[in-house]
Amino acid sequence: MSRPVGEREIIARIRQAAGNSGDLLVGIGDDCAVYKAGPDRISLVTTDTMVEGVHFDRSWHPPVALGRKAAAVNISDIAAMGGQPRFALLSLALTSAFGGQWLDAFMAGFLAVLAEYGVVLIGGDTVQGGHESVLSVTVLGEMDEAELITRKGARAGDVVLVSGFLGEAAAGLSLCRLGLSHDSGWQPLVSAHLDPVPQVALGRVLAESGVVHAMQDLSDGLATDLAHICTESGVAAVVVADKIPLSPLLHEAAKICGQSPLDWALAGGEDYQLLFTVGEQQVAELSSLVRAQTGRELFAVGRIVEGQGVFIEEAGQRREISYRGYEHFR
Amino acid sequence: MSRPVGEREIIARIRQAAGNSGDLLVGIGDDCAVYKAGPDRISLVTTDTMVEGVHFDRSWHPPVALGRKAAAVNISDIAAMGGQPRFALLSLALTSAFGGQWLDAFMAGFLAVLAEYGVVLIGGDTVQGGHESVLSVTVLGEMDEAELITRKGARAGDVVLVSGFLGEAAAGLSLCRLGLSHDSGWQPLVSAHLDPVPQVALGRVLAESGVVHAMQDLSDGLATDLAHICTESGVAAVVVADKIPLSPLLHEAAKICGQSPLDWALAGGEDYQLLFTVGEQQVAELSSLVRAQTGRELFAVGRIVEGQGVFIEEAGQRREISYRGYEHFR
Repeated sequence: MSRPVGEREIIARIRQAAGNSGDLLVGIGDDCAVYKAGPDRISLVTTDTMVEGVHFDRSWHPPVALGRKAAAVNISDIAAMGGQPRFALLSLALTSAFGGQWLDAFMAGFLAVLAEYGVVLIGGDTVQGGHESVLSVTVLGEMDEAELITRKGARAGDVVLVSGFLGEAAAGLSLCRLGLSHDSGWQPLVSAHLDPVPQVALGRVLAESGVVHAMQDLSDGLATDLAHICTESGVAAVVVADKIPLSPLLHEAAKICGQSPLDWALAGGEDYQLLFTVGEQQVAELSSLVRAQTGRELFAVGRIVEGQGVFIEEAGQRREISYRGYEHFR
Repeated sequence: MSRPVGEREIIARIRQAAGNSGDLLVGIGDDCAVYKAGPDRISLVTTDTMVEGVHFDRSWHPPVALGRKAAAVNISDIAAMGGQPRFALLSLALTSAFGGQWLDAFMAGFLAVLAEYGVVLIGGDTVQGGHESVLSVTVLGEMDEAELITRKGARAGDVVLVSGFLGEAAAGLSLCRLGLSHDSGWQPLVSAHLDPVPQVALGRVLAESGVVHAMQDLSDGLATDLAHICTESGVAAVVVADKIPLSPLLHEAAKICGQSPLDWALAGGEDYQLLFTVGEQQVAELSSLVRAQTGRELFAVGRIVEGQGVFIEEAGQRREISYRGYEHFR
């Protein structure tokens, strides 16, 4: 008797079944797979699939924005390891409802983001779809082997840092659902949802710094993404609620939407900021370096400690939040 | 007003819109995209998407066979340029009807073929599907830059060669449709359809020989695939009907199915033999080399000539067959 298979179970089955190779540096379980391309040079590859009706809705998702996002989230996976994105593949299984006008707009958005990051579209596949269209994007990147940052290197005592405001994309999604996406006052939040910005330049600075122990991009929310780093590194983490960077606009949106800004930050996902850990002695110097090279601020949100799990300290209480998806907080 | 977009139109739009890069050696329009990975080393990448109900049917396609074929056809694209396949990505958008038992069988077939060719599964994506499941496979390969064989190098005077019997897979498909797939007498044809064999070792021998001018794998049938080589190389081709290798079993199956064995060979597709061109002076020596290193025979089926188009000579008549798909012959 067959039974439905959850995503986590599928990944576990595939991860268990996958083999290994001497040239494979990072396999299933990180932002990208990584393999040796030359004596000191490595290749990174990541892929992402979007299903109509599950991940996007043709009736209200503007095709330009969808094209931009499809490119951005894959480029973000390269940024999450400190790599330079180089090439992209695009596979389209389109239903007949997707006409030339839709495709032109989608491609315009997709190619504009590729161009912003110097990425070239080099191939793909186009086939007839069934009832829903399915889009698959693959991005290839490269970097020096010595600079690679995986999820595995976090150490007890490290400071946990994030590269910007959290919860913005989740707030933007809630505003879209309330029909407020065209209100210009909410634009920063709506843009965070519709048009995320992969942190490629920052990722390169962090990789070149040589002091970052573990990193990934924030795609599922701090609670889940930090749990990935902790699991892969064999450590635990404690984040401090008051230290999580929340924008004034997020607080306003939370009132309108009747949501908790902290829950958006912990579990909303799709912020595509970078999450990483650094030894305490290196935080000040790294922050100065990042400010000088990118004009960006870093935010220390917690600590890596011995043990397992991700915990939050809020109003004197500590509770576990590991792997909590958005629905667990509602 | 939107209108439906054909696959060829989509590819043309995307090819036109795609940019370029100094490190990109082959972009859209060949079996694989090819880019520089090191001083003399190149990477190859290919991807293929299969939609339930369009490319496979869960109710009668055995999952093990589907997994094997999904791996084989992508590996064949690497073989088609003379490369060594190394790594694979698998993206699954599965409906809830696809249970753990189906997935285990699919993965067993998929991973068995990867293992046969020394390919390691390194990543992918698993998402919830809509009404149909969609499977995307990407395979990465590598080779020395000097050995790369594209579709572009065919020259007037070249001999056109194929690596084995043609039409076998199309015959196998017809037999399956007639419910004869379990008759052991037809097994070679049914296997050619269900379980194609990528020609990796032969592709490597041809690449190392240094004498092959243009090559691709036979996925759409001789008429279409040779037209690709001619278009990319700016030449024409004439094939001789009597020289096309057709097995005795194919002739038998053609009688049962009421089909023409030659049409199967020209337009049936999915044979995954290699199609390539070589200067006339090199044919004998290359054939000896291939026989010695792989035990395989090569079949000369025609000539490259000046001009454009693909023509066939049959019973003293010459007719054009360029880009004729299966349905054009029925």
